[in-house]
Amino acid sequence: MIAEIIAVGSELLTPFRQDTNSLYLTEKLNSIGVEVGFKTIVGDAMKDLVRVATTALARADILIFSGGLGPTEDDLTREAVAETLGLQLRRNPELVAAIERRFAERGWKMSANNIKQADLIQGATILTNSNGTAPGQWISGRSDGREKIIVLLPGPPHELKALFEGAVLERLQAKVPRRYIATRMLRITGMGESACDARVAPIYKRYTDVSTTILAAPGEIQLHLRAQAPSSDAAQLRVDDLVDKLEAELDDAVYSDNGDSLEQIVSYYLQMRSATLAVAESCTGGLLAERLTSVSGSSRYFMGGVVAYSNDLKVKLAEVPADLLDHFGAVSEQVAKALAEGIRKRCGTTLGLGITGVAGPTGGTDEKPVGLVYHALASESGTEVIQRNFPGDRQRIRFFASQQALDMVRRKLM
Amino acid sequence: MIAEIIAVGSELLTPFRQDTNSLYLTEKLNSIGVEVGFKTIVGDAMKDLVRVATTALARADILIFSGGLGPTEDDLTREAVAETLGLQLRRNPELVAAIERRFAERGWKMSANNIKQADLIQGATILTNSNGTAPGQWISGRSDGREKIIVLLPGPPHELKALFEGAVLERLQAKVPRRYIATRMLRITGMGESACDARVAPIYKRYTDVSTTILAAPGEIQLHLRAQAPSSDAAQLRVDDLVDKLEAELDDAVYSDNGDSLEQIVSYYLQMRSATLAVAESCTGGLLAERLTSVSGSSRYFMGGVVAYSNDLKVKLAEVPADLLDHFGAVSEQVAKALAEGIRKRCGTTLGLGITGVAGPTGGTDEKPVGLVYHALASESGTEVIQRNFPGDRQRIRFFASQQALDMVRRKLM
Repeated sequence: MIAEIIAVGSELLTPFRQDTNSLYLTEKLNSIGVEVGFKTIVGDAMKDLVRVATTALARADILIFSGGLGPTEDDLTREAVAETLGLQLRRNPELVAAIERRFAERGWKMSANNIKQADLIQGATILTNSNGTAPGQWISGRSDGREKIIVLLPGPPHELKALFEGAVLERLQAKVPRRYIATRMLRITGMGESACDARVAPIYKRYTDVSTTILAAPGEIQLHLRAQAPSSDAAQLRVDDLVDKLEAELDDAVYSDNGDSLEQIVSYYLQMRSATLAVAESCTGGLLAERLTSVSGSSRYFMGGVVAYSNDLKVKLAEVPADLLDHFGAVSEQVAKALAEGIRKRCGTTLGLGITGVAGPTGGTDEKPVGLVYHALASESGTEVIQRNFPGDRQRIRFFASQQALDMVRRKLM
Repeated sequence: MIAEIIAVGSELLTPFRQDTNSLYLTEKLNSIGVEVGFKTIVGDAMKDLVRVATTALARADILIFSGGLGPTEDDLTREAVAETLGLQLRRNPELVAAIERRFAERGWKMSANNIKQADLIQGATILTNSNGTAPGQWISGRSDGREKIIVLLPGPPHELKALFEGAVLERLQAKVPRRYIATRMLRITGMGESACDARVAPIYKRYTDVSTTILAAPGEIQLHLRAQAPSSDAAQLRVDDLVDKLEAELDDAVYSDNGDSLEQIVSYYLQMRSATLAVAESCTGGLLAERLTSVSGSSRYFMGGVVAYSNDLKVKLAEVPADLLDHFGAVSEQVAKALAEGIRKRCGTTLGLGITGVAGPTGGTDEKPVGLVYHALASESGTEVIQRNFPGDRQRIRFFASQQALDMVRRKLM
């Protein structure tokens, strides 16, 4: 069965806002073996909505609408779907009571508009929305001799998700042929997309029953794997088998085989080794510390760090000897090393990271161009320094540098 | 004239990737007075593509396809549009030569597939792609008695943008009724969406010729204004006039009236006042420094800072007296003040910012719940402390805290 996701709202046709519900819905639909064939975005106009609903009914089996269920004149999804199906809208007394109760409980005054949210398409099942006033609706029936399912969901993501998980997924599952699906995601760093694909394509192409999608994201490559089989175990076995073969080929370039972020993986390793970390950053300007502390519980291993943007602060805060700065310049292997060692000593941690480089767009020279970054990792056993020349703009260079530094910690503790 | 944007590619129907070209295209189309009526996302299947093209032809005047112009078997946009229009695809000798030249120049071997990118829809105009091998195509003609324009663009954003700006925008402008459009964007912080709307709605509703969109983004409200008028000056005058009235109402809650980010505005103020800044962060973990240094040229006023995650480092790096930590706890007005004053003294800057709080999800208590954050700004004239209780998850709390701290600097220097 093929699904079409229809996002309703004129704001989704402006340059400022994008439909994001469809990514969530796609993931959930895929998990029960339903593929999304089309996505449509349409504004709050009756004529357009009816047009879109009619088209979707002809090309898809499952239609999922998000948005347009609110109380304003612009909220027309109910009306448009009823018109498309040739069905009546009827005010449902239970829904009226529920909406009145919701307002009364909160001590809010209910405007007349709100009652419209109690209108139910003839024959529809109510999908109770515990996070908002607009209930969802489920309609199923036959059109052109085929079974069609139409689901109306509210637009706000937290309402939509709760409703889909609570009231839609199981109902859908009962309607679609039972399929068993297993997914895995490998995350790889330190390798380009084509280099990675050249190594893994000969492997995954042999697995015709596992679909593999290779995607390039900033500073990493992702391999999304998905298998279908007659049983849950069989699907898991196939996808796990492919993962084993891919990991054997890519070895330690794979930093995660379950989708975890690099900062999360580094968090596990630091805790596993009872190690602590401090950082001294120049060109990344706090990004490295920010990524490390984005993990809940990071205070167990991340002690802190300094953002030493000026040379003066490199000396004062990270104990970089002033003559090193004079002699080799702030962007140098020597200063990276001194930052890592200085902050490790200052903070008394197991590991110290130092980063210095030229993030651009200005400040580059022939000798030290934009994108040149030195990364250093200091430990009891000495200090390792890696030099890289990253492409891209300021934002990308900073992200690549933080990724490289985190990966040094991972490889050190692996 | 109404446009439909059609993003082609099976990867856009997975949970992992989203069409982003349409936001750019919408902005450009709006700038010449063309509204987007529909957006469709479709996979790389001939039957589906023809279906989508046929539907779009019936409901829109301008069809913009992105993607599906590459050399692989899956790239079918050319073929599907030709079939929909009942036109032939013809191999263009100039395009063949251009593609062969491109490969020869780079010393690459050209596979047979690549030649398919030289196929031109009968009657189409070639849109030269200087960033890739797949040229765009422009087809115009009449269907059902109405003029229709169909544009085929490559999917990679940098190719699509260069091509649209270089070869499409002007051609489109010549085809659509001349309209003059002016836009402005106000960014507001320290105020909720409904509180903001309650104050500004009575004002913008009087401007029926200016469209106003109010959007809530993390830590701010945005007002997008857009006016159309018979001349460029008249459009600008209307939108500027509304901006003046809105700024008079909202006063200093408006931090930008041209779309600049808060870190950019803070950058202007610091440079204007020849002031310098250093930061001492706890719960924001480097985010504040990261945002400040995301602005190119920030080394002129941002000296650096410390991420003092552990109490020990609050003492060592930011000169917080140890007895303050013992007495009031790390999350307290007193420690925020000491962080700001300590880092200001340590770094010798005009201003010092300190942040301490509970970002969660763990670590909250009845007395100091998740979301409690103290922000302090130290200057020659003393230290100001603001306490806030932010809602949301770890990521949102950290962002709100950085937003509040930046806004304190803005208001101080305003």
